[in-house]
Amino acid sequence: MSKPNVLVIGAGGVGVIAALALQLNGNSNVTLVVRSEHELIKNQGYSIESKCYGEYENFKPDNIAKSVDEAMDNYGPFDFIALTTKNIPDGSMTCEDIVRPAVTDGKTTIILIQNGIGIDEPMIESFPNNVILSGVSLIGSTNLGNGRVYNSHFDTLTIGYFNNPNISNSVSMSKVNEFISLYQNKDLSKNLAKLDENVKHTRWQKLIYNSALNTVTTIVDLDVNRCQINNSNKSLFEPAMSEIIKIAKSEGVTLDESVKSKFMHIGDGLFYTPSMLIDRRKKQLFELEVILGNPIKYADRNGVDAPTLKILYSLLTMIQFKIKEEIGLVKINESDFKNIDSNDYPSHFAKISHK
Amino acid sequence: MSKPNVLVIGAGGVGVIAALALQLNGNSNVTLVVRSEHELIKNQGYSIESKCYGEYENFKPDNIAKSVDEAMDNYGPFDFIALTTKNIPDGSMTCEDIVRPAVTDGKTTIILIQNGIGIDEPMIESFPNNVILSGVSLIGSTNLGNGRVYNSHFDTLTIGYFNNPNISNSVSMSKVNEFISLYQNKDLSKNLAKLDENVKHTRWQKLIYNSALNTVTTIVDLDVNRCQINNSNKSLFEPAMSEIIKIAKSEGVTLDESVKSKFMHIGDGLFYTPSMLIDRRKKQLFELEVILGNPIKYADRNGVDAPTLKILYSLLTMIQFKIKEEIGLVKINESDFKNIDSNDYPSHFAKISHK
Repeated sequence: MSKPNVLVIGAGGVGVIAALALQLNGNSNVTLVVRSEHELIKNQGYSIESKCYGEYENFKPDNIAKSVDEAMDNYGPFDFIALTTKNIPDGSMTCEDIVRPAVTDGKTTIILIQNGIGIDEPMIESFPNNVILSGVSLIGSTNLGNGRVYNSHFDTLTIGYFNNPNISNSVSMSKVNEFISLYQNKDLSKNLAKLDENVKHTRWQKLIYNSALNTVTTIVDLDVNRCQINNSNKSLFEPAMSEIIKIAKSEGVTLDESVKSKFMHIGDGLFYTPSMLIDRRKKQLFELEVILGNPIKYADRNGVDAPTLKILYSLLTMIQFKIKEEIGLVKINESDFKNIDSNDYPSHFAKISHK
Repeated sequence: MSKPNVLVIGAGGVGVIAALALQLNGNSNVTLVVRSEHELIKNQGYSIESKCYGEYENFKPDNIAKSVDEAMDNYGPFDFIALTTKNIPDGSMTCEDIVRPAVTDGKTTIILIQNGIGIDEPMIESFPNNVILSGVSLIGSTNLGNGRVYNSHFDTLTIGYFNNPNISNSVSMSKVNEFISLYQNKDLSKNLAKLDENVKHTRWQKLIYNSALNTVTTIVDLDVNRCQINNSNKSLFEPAMSEIIKIAKSEGVTLDESVKSKFMHIGDGLFYTPSMLIDRRKKQLFELEVILGNPIKYADRNGVDAPTLKILYSLLTMIQFKIKEEIGLVKINESDFKNIDSNDYPSHFAKISHK
């Protein structure tokens, strides 16, 4: 039996290490999409310093493609797509559009190694006959640029399946087990690919952290501990976390209240900067909709109060807008708003943006 | 009878024009404290372009002092102090400490030409035998630096008295009328100094604007209209304004709900930047406590819910902290927080800051 074809999309810190893990195991043909440093990587490969996998010069997976289209043309069809990009439906491209060229209907399993809640819904809607898996990655890994990747922590990947009404759970589960077998190294000191028996619980639990610490630090542009010096544990982190727990409950997911305290103290003394704030500082779009937008939609649908999250979301929408304007993704002509009632600005803007 | 001595403290756009207005009338001896460009102004005076007062080269009031202490030594005692600085009790100096060297107990009337609520309380506590007046200024005026001041709008100054339990209202009112007579020009096209018959109402009403538009735009670093494109009228401005109206009500001040709409639409199409955001962009401290901190104290005291204002306040506290750190007003040694529970950071920081 020939080896399955795996396509890794997203050549950030997580994606490159995923390609490395798969390649080292040798159980799949690995294709990595590399857009921004394509020539460099095609020629020299990556220089990787990894705490768990070791050091590599000139690492290249089996195949390197410049785009998803090219990957499909030259190295497809694919049994698995591991999507490790950020999930930003309000950005220049949805995740569905990103993977679409490489998806074979009824065949390709798509693993979303991404943060957030509700990311499965548009994916299942777009690809109703494909298995969609959830990957939650715990790994400190950064693409430093110039082909250099630094991975500071052990690589734990928790994998389970999203419920898809069109596909039986046993089929989905077999894909989970197959991908674990592709990812798990025989040497257990290298990584841990483990089964996620309750994807919803895992993802909502991680959201407790992301929805509070990522969001507040991003709004005020201060690291976690400086926020805490200004009383954020009590004034913002705890209320935001409690609202997520209530929304999760309304979605049938019971989270342990003690997790709030764990996450609030996880970086005591470390003065560290969450990823969303790092994105903001780099003028990159951040994962607002899957971290806050979707949970708020569920809150509204289920009649759960979420006043803190809603205010944080409104403010972050504006900060994201500012980044979009700075990078040229939206453009404001001030004269377009003459003689328009400011209550109607949102709908007016939507109208003129779609011209 | 000799002319009264008036000291103007704060040589910003409002302060310099106040000194000009008083000087043009000629009914008082005017002393202006000029700190940062003292030598330049002492030598050349101000170059003023004013829509209502006209153009002046080399304008100097009767006296220019380098500090409040020097003003008192050389040109005091003072019948009136007009304080036009920002009111930032969490900054390097309280307003009480700023005026103190020039206040003669029982004699000097202090006019607070400043934004915010609750600014009278610490002033009356510090100077219980002095009349404290409220000045609300409507004037577009900016000190552009290098001795240049640009005043784009008509100068309206609304003057009334704060209730002081130690001083009869008739004494306070006589001081209001006296200051109006010093400030009001005979030529009514120049300015309007008018009686404020209900200081609390005037100040709370202005707060409806300041507490919502100044605060939100400052947090997200976007002008008013860009916020409105992102739905801020509905998501943040209106809720914040409604909370101020409820707090005012609990303080015995009834505000007209229609003012919300007026303020939300006051700058439709203008894409303008409120003063608090201008301060933030210049890395200057902004008037957080008198705009949000004090109203929230009243809300808590009177049992009024103010969830929106409290979150905006918490976030702005952190942004103000960031500015304080940037300008060296606070200093964080990260190692001071090792092995401290992050819940205790605020009290720990207070303790080590006061060493």
